[in-house]
Amino acid sequence: MIDGLTQCGKLIARVNELLLAWLPNDETPSELHTAMRYVNENGGKRIRALLVYLLTDALGGTMEAADAPAVAIEYIHAYSLVHDDLPAMDDDAMRRGKPSCHVAFDEATAILVGDACQTLAFECLAKRGSDLSAATRLLMVTCLSELAGARGLIGGQMRDLAATKKTLALPGIQRIHAGKTGAMFRACGEMALLAASVNDASKANHVRSFCESLGLAFQIQDDILDASSSSETLGKTAGKDAKSHKATYVTLLGIDEAQQLAKKTWSRVTESLAHIVTTPHELTGLVDSLQKRRY
Amino acid sequence: MIDGLTQCGKLIARVNELLLAWLPNDETPSELHTAMRYVNENGGKRIRALLVYLLTDALGGTMEAADAPAVAIEYIHAYSLVHDDLPAMDDDAMRRGKPSCHVAFDEATAILVGDACQTLAFECLAKRGSDLSAATRLLMVTCLSELAGARGLIGGQMRDLAATKKTLALPGIQRIHAGKTGAMFRACGEMALLAASVNDASKANHVRSFCESLGLAFQIQDDILDASSSSETLGKTAGKDAKSHKATYVTLLGIDEAQQLAKKTWSRVTESLAHIVTTPHELTGLVDSLQKRRY
Repeated sequence: MIDGLTQCGKLIARVNELLLAWLPNDETPSELHTAMRYVNENGGKRIRALLVYLLTDALGGTMEAADAPAVAIEYIHAYSLVHDDLPAMDDDAMRRGKPSCHVAFDEATAILVGDACQTLAFECLAKRGSDLSAATRLLMVTCLSELAGARGLIGGQMRDLAATKKTLALPGIQRIHAGKTGAMFRACGEMALLAASVNDASKANHVRSFCESLGLAFQIQDDILDASSSSETLGKTAGKDAKSHKATYVTLLGIDEAQQLAKKTWSRVTESLAHIVTTPHELTGLVDSLQKRRY
Repeated sequence: MIDGLTQCGKLIARVNELLLAWLPNDETPSELHTAMRYVNENGGKRIRALLVYLLTDALGGTMEAADAPAVAIEYIHAYSLVHDDLPAMDDDAMRRGKPSCHVAFDEATAILVGDACQTLAFECLAKRGSDLSAATRLLMVTCLSELAGARGLIGGQMRDLAATKKTLALPGIQRIHAGKTGAMFRACGEMALLAASVNDASKANHVRSFCESLGLAFQIQDDILDASSSSETLGKTAGKDAKSHKATYVTLLGIDEAQQLAKKTWSRVTESLAHIVTTPHELTGLVDSLQKRRY
């Protein structure tokens, strides 16, 4: 998707390298280490890491300051996918074009790998990278723990599970996604604001709106792609939502209305973005490529 | 076990109250919140919290400074038990005298509850309690994430799972328990040293020896109790180790030699303790009652 963008390509290479370099490879049981490598290497569009890097850059921070939060949020994302794919959860055998962790290894390993990737995210924020004061790191730990926890990511997962059992209206779906996808996009924004030491309240609000709209646009688009793409293109099982009678923007609004809502939400993303970057910036390229993505 | 000890009783009441008060009860899906309450309320000997409180006190720190780490380590302990009991892991239906989380709720909920309790532990260290500087809190996050992660607690769980498949010698068992039980006892010591701002290297070493020996003594005793007590007394399934052909100190050494090893290890605990408290202190009472425990 973003291969053509030089800066994004470099940042993806950077986060991919750090994701593996910061794994606990010494004194770790070898099977655990192999499985942690498996779920963190290759695949993954690294959108959350790119958001942290490019927002930090747009806000005047250094890439060194963005390293720890960019890697931490990808560890959290990896852990949530590993647990989400478990038989007791979404029961998905395919992820990022490869067998899911519990298929490639086993369920017990997948549970522990997810647990360990979450722990590692906080270890990473506490001590990895540079250009960050203890106070800033601690605020990042606060932010990530609040948004990844029961009020954020995990709350969204819980609502999502409950949603397969009942009919949901639009506000129900919005609450699910505010947690499931939205919380992590918001965390990208909050951590970039911290990494770049932004004190301008108005700028901070634009960043928050941008991340919130982007998370929403991304999710609506995910629902549309799930309903209209093949598993091969997606790198994960397609058509799952309809099969599991899961309420999505598409099942609720129909594909046309979902597409209109997506378009409207992308406009809001672009409006907020205009307040963040006033000269040409790679962040605009990232938003464009996300809007055009087909997987 | 520690009912007779007034100070311990008060500290248990204190940690029990905080464990529930610091749960994310607003904006949380109600099933998730109910299940998080379920695994954190009642039951639990709260040994790890007591260790943090009493060590901090013995080292000259305040109980307010010990609140966040005491609660955080109990959230981590709760999460590890919830995941450990899952069908894909130890498959245990009983915990703290009640049905395990996945039995009382369901597997998906138990996975998410464990995840959320881990996240909450770091949120707690980052912002709960008082008498702690940002720098100290961050060092606690570093310490807990290192010791609860792949090199500590989770590494021990992974080795434990692998151990059911093969014959282990003593060093193998020791490595499992250094991770599974030992790491969290060590974390209690490290966080108490931080909470009390101890700069005396020799004192710190005694605390480390104390926690390491205590963790080991506790685990050997756990193996002995599993082999010789009833489920009713233990509040969890007894005799599981032998049934699952799991290598333990008892299966490896026999009950007599395991008891001798336990006795020797308890002596080491008492020796280190003598360097930490020189006047009568509740910590001595805690050690005594742990040594005499029958569940």
